[in-house]
Amino acid sequence: MTGAEALLATARAAGIDVCFANPGTTEMPLVAALDSAGGIRPVLGLFEGVCTGAADGFGRMAGRPAMTLLHLGPGLANGLANLHNARRAHTPVLNVVGDHATWHLACDSPLTSDIRALAATVGWVDNSREACALGADLARAVSAAATAPGQVATLIVPADLQAAANVAPALVPTAAPPPIPEVSRIAAAVEALRRGRSTALFLGGAACRGRALAQAGRIAAATGCRIVAETFPARMERGAGTPRIERFGYFPEQASGLMEGVDRVVLAGAPDPVAMFGWPGARSRMLPEHIAVLSLARPDESVAQALAAVAEAFAAPAGSSTAAPFQPPAAPSGVLDTYSLAAAIAATLPEHAVVVDEGATSSVPLHTALECAAPHSWLTLTGGAIGQGLPCATGAAIACPDRRVVCLQADGSGLYTLQALWTQAREALDVTTIICANNAYRILQIELMRAGVAEPGPAARALTNLSEPGLDWVKLAAGMGVPAVRVETADTMVRELERALAEPGPHLIEATLR
Amino acid sequence: MTGAEALLATARAAGIDVCFANPGTTEMPLVAALDSAGGIRPVLGLFEGVCTGAADGFGRMAGRPAMTLLHLGPGLANGLANLHNARRAHTPVLNVVGDHATWHLACDSPLTSDIRALAATVGWVDNSREACALGADLARAVSAAATAPGQVATLIVPADLQAAANVAPALVPTAAPPPIPEVSRIAAAVEALRRGRSTALFLGGAACRGRALAQAGRIAAATGCRIVAETFPARMERGAGTPRIERFGYFPEQASGLMEGVDRVVLAGAPDPVAMFGWPGARSRMLPEHIAVLSLARPDESVAQALAAVAEAFAAPAGSSTAAPFQPPAAPSGVLDTYSLAAAIAATLPEHAVVVDEGATSSVPLHTALECAAPHSWLTLTGGAIGQGLPCATGAAIACPDRRVVCLQADGSGLYTLQALWTQAREALDVTTIICANNAYRILQIELMRAGVAEPGPAARALTNLSEPGLDWVKLAAGMGVPAVRVETADTMVRELERALAEPGPHLIEATLR
Repeated sequence: MTGAEALLATARAAGIDVCFANPGTTEMPLVAALDSAGGIRPVLGLFEGVCTGAADGFGRMAGRPAMTLLHLGPGLANGLANLHNARRAHTPVLNVVGDHATWHLACDSPLTSDIRALAATVGWVDNSREACALGADLARAVSAAATAPGQVATLIVPADLQAAANVAPALVPTAAPPPIPEVSRIAAAVEALRRGRSTALFLGGAACRGRALAQAGRIAAATGCRIVAETFPARMERGAGTPRIERFGYFPEQASGLMEGVDRVVLAGAPDPVAMFGWPGARSRMLPEHIAVLSLARPDESVAQALAAVAEAFAAPAGSSTAAPFQPPAAPSGVLDTYSLAAAIAATLPEHAVVVDEGATSSVPLHTALECAAPHSWLTLTGGAIGQGLPCATGAAIACPDRRVVCLQADGSGLYTLQALWTQAREALDVTTIICANNAYRILQIELMRAGVAEPGPAARALTNLSEPGLDWVKLAAGMGVPAVRVETADTMVRELERALAEPGPHLIEATLR
Repeated sequence: MTGAEALLATARAAGIDVCFANPGTTEMPLVAALDSAGGIRPVLGLFEGVCTGAADGFGRMAGRPAMTLLHLGPGLANGLANLHNARRAHTPVLNVVGDHATWHLACDSPLTSDIRALAATVGWVDNSREACALGADLARAVSAAATAPGQVATLIVPADLQAAANVAPALVPTAAPPPIPEVSRIAAAVEALRRGRSTALFLGGAACRGRALAQAGRIAAATGCRIVAETFPARMERGAGTPRIERFGYFPEQASGLMEGVDRVVLAGAPDPVAMFGWPGARSRMLPEHIAVLSLARPDESVAQALAAVAEAFAAPAGSSTAAPFQPPAAPSGVLDTYSLAAAIAATLPEHAVVVDEGATSSVPLHTALECAAPHSWLTLTGGAIGQGLPCATGAAIACPDRRVVCLQADGSGLYTLQALWTQAREALDVTTIICANNAYRILQIELMRAGVAEPGPAARALTNLSEPGLDWVKLAAGMGVPAVRVETADTMVRELERALAEPGPHLIEATLR
């Protein structure tokens, strides 16, 4: 095998079967090996931020890493923002970045830069130095990516090593299971949760899905405690049949309002929540100071087992829960605003859809609207680096070909990585994108108000306003090969959603919001 | 003044009057100060790669830095690829990146990352630590950007320092002039150049424009030496009235073919040229080993004064040159391929246009076609990080409102930063973009062939082919507010170019290439 073939065979044996790629000259042996080694599906993104965001979405839904293939430092740099989101989501991602031939590096040719420094900002990184070690290097990278709770791992592979002959693949050892929290922390959590509604079980990370989430529902049913989840979970199971969970606030005053009456918080898979920004007059920690905080399970520990132990301590019946009923809102009509848009999505959402939410200010009502909709997975912007929605939806659709993906996308953020639409078209993915067209960086207009700028001047207006000229998403989508319509009322929103969700392949609906 | 106002006043006093911006919450005091401080024009880019590429184009044409305003680590990361190109072009660029409030940094909130590590990969970087030093910090950053031959400088400014009161601006000291090479190197260059056509004067950096270029013309006229320029100059003055200059090759075999008969090379403002990639069987250095290489002036030295001293040594008459005549090709007709496209541009090019060339494989014939066209500036992809053309053209147009900008843009590369079209529309810039639509990463198809992959498999085809579905640039441009047409023959290309160049504002022409 060539080095490239050995690398891919190692990855394939570890269960990696998708490669989101935008390669260049230094990755050509790996591109050729995708054909000769086989078993890994290449998916082209027209910009690296599409590839990395798709790998994030894939990893969140599949629970195992996708691979990316990126070109040198600039290619990795273009993908860093969505790798930052993956880092905050604890998504396992394997980046393979080609490098100049080992003998060419010292001459500092135009495309040379410090790839390692870039990769280190988002997680684990190493350089391959010998062709014979390529399989072992890749195995170490996969192991790093899979280390609980999951991380971004980058392997930098010089082109001459990729092209070397007679290289053997390696085996990736099974990842160690995450550690189980000590009994004393479980006992302390039980003690706190015994107090009912004055205690909040605060979920994050892996606690927002699967077996861990079911245990949280059992605990709430048995104790009457409140369940709150972090503001931006990587993936949360929601809708009919899942435990009802309150969402933590974005602004500090929202968070402290929500926690009124709570004097104990049990953290399960979540860090002690901190504010997105250091707003003047506020604090970094979001939980009011009088609240006692206990850690049941850190993000890198087995939160499912910890929650199961707590549920057992209460002898909570298996399957009991504070489950939401199936009671979606009625299909809305009339004015199309963020509330009727959320209702339209909730009313039409297919069972087991994946909802990717980068709606920013426009998706505030969505969380409540979806509570009693059909069961679904909800993916959010974990790291605050905008331009995540369209790529994440793309990767989620590749991970879950039998599920519908609905992407609520703010217009300003969506423009960062609109190239993802083309990949959706090429791969014929069942993604329905809804662009929330308010023609503004609305969150920044709100921030200016909060900062006391009552009347923004021309510069502030110019930098927060996306009209002049307005953007035409119907044309942009069509230019990328995705059929699109513009809707201006709630009635047509419902109709177009129903139509898009009934047809195969990607669709885009530009929602002109009041 | 607030810290933000003091920072901007310092920048303004140093001659910085344009800010390419995509700010976020941590830059709001700077956004407000753009209004209250005044004198700096804010230009919004819908993606940070547009802002940084525009700052590069602006700096190349204006000869002084523009400022960018970017949001935290992810905002800077999105701009890094074009900052990499600026680094290789030695363009002075001043990045101001907002950071979390100083008291908020330690809590590692979701948008926190190692901004400094990212910025260090492209040049000078420092963090502001005290509000009272903001003016001085900014002055140091401007001085760093202006240090010969010019570089990218990044200042990271926490939001609370921006908002602090009673901060005074600072003065930016005048930049030291670049050092003049020692007399011995000038004498050695004179000795070599005396030998006529067996010696090549190899121009790079500042030697490709202005007074330095004129001196090179004098020298060639006096000595009969060959003049060759680096393959990808940041900015080169070309066309009628400028010295005729050969272009160095891209592939090693082209370079060595060009240098046949040459046994001495005098480097003027250029480094010893190295290959873009380490191709198997080739070397990193592009000049054949038998050639003796002399350095007249390094990129950080005054190449204009060095060349003037050489010209004086030959007593070359002032104004003498091997100037190109005004003899543009006839307007082409018939099939539209890369040759007739180049002829169409050369035939219609207005006087003193700025030609931004990210045409990749499609612009190979452009260099020759433009040699005797109207005088113009030619800007190329210095760092190989694709997605530079549209943003660079945007910044060049802001720097030169009285000049027409023509941007030859490869389709695959153009998709990286197509958001630049919107900024061209908003600012009503006189930019004519020609998309070279070959629906492929053609250079990669060539690289696969060179690597011996005679018959690419399905993976290699999928990753180098941009059809399935095809991209519709007419719709993409219209979606961004730029009028566009598609042309399929050389005749219509000429007609549409003439029309676009006669009208104000941006235009896009999608050239379907045979």
